[in-house]
Amino acid sequence: VTCRRPGFRGRLPITIADLGEFGLIAEIRSLLPAGPGQIVGIGDDAAVVRAPDQRVVATTDLLVEGRHFRREWSSAFDIGGKAAAQNLADVVAMGASPTALLVGLAAPGDLAVSWARDLVRGLGDEARRAGAAVVGGDVSSAESVVLAVTALGDLGGRDPVTRGGARPGDRVAVAGLLGRSAAGLALFEAGLAEPAELARRVGEAGGSAKAVIDIAKLIASHQRPRPPYAAGPEAASLGATSMIDISDGLLADLRHVTDASGVLIDVQTARLPDDAGLRLTGQLVGADPLTWVLTGGEDHALAATFPQDVRLPDRWRVIGSASDGEGVTVDSVFVDGPGGWRHFS
Amino acid sequence: VTCRRPGFRGRLPITIADLGEFGLIAEIRSLLPAGPGQIVGIGDDAAVVRAPDQRVVATTDLLVEGRHFRREWSSAFDIGGKAAAQNLADVVAMGASPTALLVGLAAPGDLAVSWARDLVRGLGDEARRAGAAVVGGDVSSAESVVLAVTALGDLGGRDPVTRGGARPGDRVAVAGLLGRSAAGLALFEAGLAEPAELARRVGEAGGSAKAVIDIAKLIASHQRPRPPYAAGPEAASLGATSMIDISDGLLADLRHVTDASGVLIDVQTARLPDDAGLRLTGQLVGADPLTWVLTGGEDHALAATFPQDVRLPDRWRVIGSASDGEGVTVDSVFVDGPGGWRHFS
Repeated sequence: VTCRRPGFRGRLPITIADLGEFGLIAEIRSLLPAGPGQIVGIGDDAAVVRAPDQRVVATTDLLVEGRHFRREWSSAFDIGGKAAAQNLADVVAMGASPTALLVGLAAPGDLAVSWARDLVRGLGDEARRAGAAVVGGDVSSAESVVLAVTALGDLGGRDPVTRGGARPGDRVAVAGLLGRSAAGLALFEAGLAEPAELARRVGEAGGSAKAVIDIAKLIASHQRPRPPYAAGPEAASLGATSMIDISDGLLADLRHVTDASGVLIDVQTARLPDDAGLRLTGQLVGADPLTWVLTGGEDHALAATFPQDVRLPDRWRVIGSASDGEGVTVDSVFVDGPGGWRHFS
Repeated sequence: VTCRRPGFRGRLPITIADLGEFGLIAEIRSLLPAGPGQIVGIGDDAAVVRAPDQRVVATTDLLVEGRHFRREWSSAFDIGGKAAAQNLADVVAMGASPTALLVGLAAPGDLAVSWARDLVRGLGDEARRAGAAVVGGDVSSAESVVLAVTALGDLGGRDPVTRGGARPGDRVAVAGLLGRSAAGLALFEAGLAEPAELARRVGEAGGSAKAVIDIAKLIASHQRPRPPYAAGPEAASLGATSMIDISDGLLADLRHVTDASGVLIDVQTARLPDDAGLRLTGQLVGADPLTWVLTGGEDHALAATFPQDVRLPDRWRVIGSASDGEGVTVDSVFVDGPGGWRHFS
């Protein structure tokens, strides 16, 4: 209703205002193949999606330009991928398999059609990685780009895994990456995201070509998280007692689990992954990599609690345990400060 | 993640930045009772909603301040109600019963908590009218207010009614109101939304007190649509061959039906409702009420096609018929112009 009517008269439509609302929707639709869960897709009043479990898992997130992403730091494809990933991760954190995405896109009329196209490709690509598809949405004009993504999922007969079921004695485990998006952000902020500059600085610091690659991967991690989608339903099948998508940082999100479950969780730093890229980046930008691991969000790893007797597959790394009490400790010391953590050296 | 941290220190939290993200979510949660379809509600990674039909209907809409609503023309309660209504209407237009809403709210940090509270009450109130509940959402800061609403629904064993099933010979019927939101908007634009001014002008025009009331109801219709929620599932049960939520205007939305179904639809103006409020308002602002009825959106009436032999309940008013061909005619004349209609007098 809100994009200007077609007015490009003879030249190629290069802005979304040139295309108009219905032209933009047709363009988006052409880029998105139907998924297995889709019964009615884009183009009707609403989509219809399979929900064989008779319960549907649903979550929504807003991404606002300048707050959640910057067009100068990330490609449209990566912004779409990240928007999809953070919603799909919330679905799997309940123990469900993603089925569908709905996407609201508000943008200035002068937004390039190519940018919108790449955004939609990124959304569709990430949906596909998680076994889902984009089935519907809405477009509107606005001063800046706002993305509203809703993800749906199916529990496949499993009980939903909430934040509230952790029990004293449970082991705490993580699947996926920690601290890598935060380290990537630090590289952007330090002006080291440009490959030539990064290589020069790593060389000056005595680092190898492999070090450059390890660090460059962190930049990619910030631009495009890779949540471990299969690990969510897997944890539910294994009998996880609680689970959460790590979006605000490991300690902050474990705090949501301890608050909801009424337990204390201790994280043992010796059990956290030793990540060469993080160590090198910490040296380069003068920061403590452990802070990124404990407080960095946006990697969308999963944290879950499991009864002692559950045999965990390799992708689940035990990093601590739950006990009677409340709050989160690191190596048995209570922590506070931003993100629930202040480095106490 | 994006609202400022609590900083009100001693005074009452009056802006959403004072409350902070988690404070605002807690406030929102306290205003929203659980609905019958809700298994897991606000406060976890995702909501879990009953989907007994094993298919879920899902739709999403963005509402952008200054484009879809004005804070100076509508109360927060009405904006919330309208945002909910337009999504719930899309769900019932598929023949489904609404079960849940998810709401993304982006807003400036200086937004009054009372405004956000009223918005949420409006959303919850309209959800309840439709038999649904708000089960989840997201909050973010932004330059202006953006609402992203997703509605879910259950088909209850009925086939989804798309836009594509109308057949030659079908009758075309409408449930709900037509043209009233557009007439209300015209009153705002003419500076007649203020009760005293409206009464004075109606008096000058020789109108009665009842006329003032009839017209004032149009202002309310613009601020808060009243979609006929029960009519959607009813139409599906009756065997409607196609259905659409009238959001862009009767003719424009019937055009979506004719395009998707491959039929021609003729609207007979003699069958359209005679609305005293619209007639009076047309005289007041110097406009043709028929234009509002044929092209006014936002009342969220439902238009559906039914086989000839279906006995229609009173709330469905037959306004025309489908036949071989394509496009939309009014009294057998093809129409064009804005919203598919130019008054051809």
